[in-house]
Amino acid sequence: MDTEDRIEKFADLRLENLYESDFLLTWDRTDEEIEGVLAVADMLKALRENNRSTRIFSSGLAVSIFRDKSTRTRFSFASASNLLGLAVSELDETKSQISHGETVRETANMISFLTEVIGIRDDMYIGEGHSYMKMVSDAVREGFSERILPQLPMIVNLQCDIDHPTQTMADLMHLVHYFGGIEKLRGKKLVMSWAYSPSYGKPLSVPQGIIGLLTRFGMNVVLAHPEGYGLIPEVMTIAGEQSGKSGGRFEVTGSMEDAFRDAHVVYPKSWAPYHIMEKRTELLKARDMKGLEALEADCLENNKSYVEWECTQRLMKSTKDALYLHCLPADISGVSCERGEVEASVFDRFRTATYSQAGYKPYIIAAAIYLSKVKDPVSKMKELLYSGDRRVM
Amino acid sequence: MDTEDRIEKFADLRLENLYESDFLLTWDRTDEEIEGVLAVADMLKALRENNRSTRIFSSGLAVSIFRDKSTRTRFSFASASNLLGLAVSELDETKSQISHGETVRETANMISFLTEVIGIRDDMYIGEGHSYMKMVSDAVREGFSERILPQLPMIVNLQCDIDHPTQTMADLMHLVHYFGGIEKLRGKKLVMSWAYSPSYGKPLSVPQGIIGLLTRFGMNVVLAHPEGYGLIPEVMTIAGEQSGKSGGRFEVTGSMEDAFRDAHVVYPKSWAPYHIMEKRTELLKARDMKGLEALEADCLENNKSYVEWECTQRLMKSTKDALYLHCLPADISGVSCERGEVEASVFDRFRTATYSQAGYKPYIIAAAIYLSKVKDPVSKMKELLYSGDRRVM
Amino acid sequence: MDTEDRIEKFADLRLENLYESDFLLTWDRTDEEIEGVLAVADMLKALRENNRSTRIFSSGLAVSIFRDKSTRTRFSFASASNLLGLAVSELDETKSQISHGETVRETANMISFLTEVIGIRDDMYIGEGHSYMKMVSDAVREGFSERILPQLPMIVNLQCDIDHPTQTMADLMHLVHYFGGIEKLRGKKLVMSWAYSPSYGKPLSVPQGIIGLLTRFGMNVVLAHPEGYGLIPEVMTIAGEQSGKSGGRFEVTGSMEDAFRDAHVVYPKSWAPYHIMEKRTELLKARDMKGLEALEADCLENNKSYVEWECTQRLMKSTKDALYLHCLPADISGVSCERGEVEASVFDRFRTATYSQAGYKPYIIAAAIYLSKVKDPVSKMKELLYSGDRRVM
Repeated sequence: MDTEDRIEKFADLRLENLYESDFLLTWDRTDEEIEGVLAVADMLKALRENNRSTRIFSSGLAVSIFRDKSTRTRFSFASASNLLGLAVSELDETKSQISHGETVRETANMISFLTEVIGIRDDMYIGEGHSYMKMVSDAVREGFSERILPQLPMIVNLQCDIDHPTQTMADLMHLVHYFGGIEKLRGKKLVMSWAYSPSYGKPLSVPQGIIGLLTRFGMNVVLAHPEGYGLIPEVMTIAGEQSGKSGGRFEVTGSMEDAFRDAHVVYPKSWAPYHIMEKRTELLKARDMKGLEALEADCLENNKSYVEWECTQRLMKSTKDALYLHCLPADISGVSCERGEVEASVFDRFRTATYSQAGYKPYIIAAAIYLSKVKDPVSKMKELLYSGDRRVM
Repeated sequence: MDTEDRIEKFADLRLENLYESDFLLTWDRTDEEIEGVLAVADMLKALRENNRSTRIFSSGLAVSIFRDKSTRTRFSFASASNLLGLAVSELDETKSQISHGETVRETANMISFLTEVIGIRDDMYIGEGHSYMKMVSDAVREGFSERILPQLPMIVNLQCDIDHPTQTMADLMHLVHYFGGIEKLRGKKLVMSWAYSPSYGKPLSVPQGIIGLLTRFGMNVVLAHPEGYGLIPEVMTIAGEQSGKSGGRFEVTGSMEDAFRDAHVVYPKSWAPYHIMEKRTELLKARDMKGLEALEADCLENNKSYVEWECTQRLMKSTKDALYLHCLPADISGVSCERGEVEASVFDRFRTATYSQAGYKPYIIAAAIYLSKVKDPVSKMKELLYSGDRRVM
Repeated sequence: MDTEDRIEKFADLRLENLYESDFLLTWDRTDEEIEGVLAVADMLKALRENNRSTRIFSSGLAVSIFRDKSTRTRFSFASASNLLGLAVSELDETKSQISHGETVRETANMISFLTEVIGIRDDMYIGEGHSYMKMVSDAVREGFSERILPQLPMIVNLQCDIDHPTQTMADLMHLVHYFGGIEKLRGKKLVMSWAYSPSYGKPLSVPQGIIGLLTRFGMNVVLAHPEGYGLIPEVMTIAGEQSGKSGGRFEVTGSMEDAFRDAHVVYPKSWAPYHIMEKRTELLKARDMKGLEALEADCLENNKSYVEWECTQRLMKSTKDALYLHCLPADISGVSCERGEVEASVFDRFRTATYSQAGYKPYIIAAAIYLSKVKDPVSKMKELLYSGDRRVM
């Protein structure tokens, strides 16, 4: 499909509610809106590959707030911002600081006078990340309505405690390209499985985001994890409801082996148990450092009981020649750790695929910004296509 | 007044001495030059709000040197630079390092080969910040005259030990908008008052900058502080002289209560005593860490005697419905600290106003850069207005 | 020579192998390619000085990886990137971390989805820097060939353990301007001499880079150092071979005095002994911190035997009114240290010259990027010259 045809198809989607809106959770958006983000991402990618300029701003800031270390998300956001003509400014916050409302309100406005978008990553503490993003959003909306800010900065969730929408939409885009269309996902079995890792406290936002997004397209989504590694109940409910509506299935199992059988897609990845993450937030708020250390030791000890949860060649053979997904970096057995999430031979076979999967993210982020910022996204896309402005001049 | 009229009025001002000049202290500039900065700030703001591009550079660096932590000034400078088309590069210097001439000269040139402006914040040590800026300025002027540098980087003071010109010009811009014109300031009573804070070592540059700027427009400026919290004598002299010339008044009082009576504008803010700040510089130079700790304890103890210096509802009632100013962040009693500079109920009422006050700063910084960089500021402004280049394309 | 004549002359050079190529070692490039980089640097400089825009990208990232502290190289790279229209993103890596292949491969791709150039400085460990750059290069070439990356990022060596090509080409450009042409270098005596410094572990890449580049143009290159301060044998061999081919001479001497006699150019600079640097890498890999400390003490003690190796007025008098070179910062006796590489009176006389020398570097880096990125560098240069796009608009 060429870009003109894409624009025509894209013009049929109802996307007006994305305008001047944040992007925080995929399940707050309609199916058409999700498809719209993917469509714009595809078109921006095609424009760039055909050396069209995709600048829509001649000036403006894109502020990033990373309350946790990050390389790939940082570069994805920088790339997306640059693609649209925005300059990145990073707000350097003290790590692991639980924020107070007053300070958030003030800082949010102070960094936003000429800011078009604020990208936030805050995934460390259950009950904190999403609510922090909403505080920032409320603050700049208030600032805009009181004419303190001449434009409304959009908030884009670059990973919170609940969801990781730009990751999971990039994952979805990868699946759509792999299977040849979003409608081809119907009936495919996708396994989101816990896997062993020797590290502690990996966020729950990827598995939650995956079951919260991929249950919408008629897939048979299976969540597999050992006892005690469940996810936030609200997201489980959403996944179940969406699955029913979309004509797919959503199951939970305690066996990685059962889950992998006849799967078309597998996503084996470690995460911390929900109740541990909750306890961690409490201890942190109480500044109980000893308690935190003890919790970490407990949790790692507990993980060890499930060292067999590894994505092996043997398991992969039981699938229907499944595609392996990972948000990277993966804990590869014998490479990045002794025992980890995936056997080296499995990872090696899918390395290129996982890199390509990651490569969609800058365009997904750019698309989410584009749809929040551009009032008439169809006309603007035609303008970009026909203007003749080159990226490499 | 629309932008065209503004340009006409602006064309009458004598601004040629701002060209290729630094912006270090407001009292080194004429009234017309101060008005010129405000006029350009207003026009850049209007252009941006009408979606005109204000890029005057297609390439060039804006270097920032923050020798002290900063969020709002950092983003103001980033915003201003971006507005004009410059890319920010930060020079990361070790904090609290007293610089030596040779190193400053070399570094200043090494970061300036393609640099249009250097924004510096260095406010921690009395006798250091301003002289550091002059060293940098001398170095790049020498470099330019010796043809090492193909353009002369302008130095803009983002806060030194003596003055904080971009803050106080933003404050002035706020007052001009609030009262409806610079001539409306005449006869208004403005109080720059010390206020209690549980923190140590706040710079003197804001109160000094305020009395050094606002005594020029016929206002009745009152400086209020407890004994021992005086400002640099030179600035006091300047304030007195300017006040006389402008037909206003400049008074100093030891009573916050007296000061507030019938005031039109109040600026209650904490700062460290001048002699403490002087002693601090000496101890620092001698690397006397024990002495520094003792000094801090002394100073905080001393502050406690003046915990009653708080901007309360009761005090505000004695004013002529005064406008409350603050450069933010304020120490709000019961919010950011137990007892602080201002009662929460007072701050709440003026929160939006203080945020708007801060919002002028990016435009003030951009205007200062613009007037130093653009030889014919009137023609260029007309070009920006009529070119039709859009900011959001 | 005006820019048009320069372009004509430049059109005769064979530069096609620079296209889509990295710039890692000068001796991997032909004489014409080196001349090509200098010619483009000159033209970009002239264009900028004549207020022509030299943007060749409307979007794209320039990633910098500094595995060692840096001010001047950081700003040179930022300036060069900005000059061509690229936005800089810095990858913050833990210092002194010896990298593993798998991680490098993944990270290299993750930061490169929209990246045009990766500038790397990694000069601390013998056997590490150059091989790290090749790992990054291999990784992105593989990523490009597998269509993970839509463009091939170029790697530019901003200093490795073997060579410092952008420094030495800037040095060469300085000499060409000083003597009035590259052919004027023939027969001139250039001394690359070790000099005393009270600091430890300065990289060998500058002396190696100098003998590896300047032996190509018919100069008489003399390398002078105390016993035990030899360079990597491979580079010594290359220098000898090149020297023979170019009709110049390459000699090594153990006497600074002998070396300076009748010299036209002197480059006195400290570096660590090769065998110490090798041992350091071993100890580091073994995480032997005590061993590293002992090695440093040994090395500094050893240096002290050669405190007389200082560039003095007396020595300078024995030269043919030689030009003094330094890559800065120099250890100036009585200024930055008690005894150092150069007497203050010598440095003072050449300060402006050394600053100018440094000033070529941004253009050299930009030229190296330009020639790797632009398929038809002659036509593009004409476009930049005649387009009429201004830098200061």
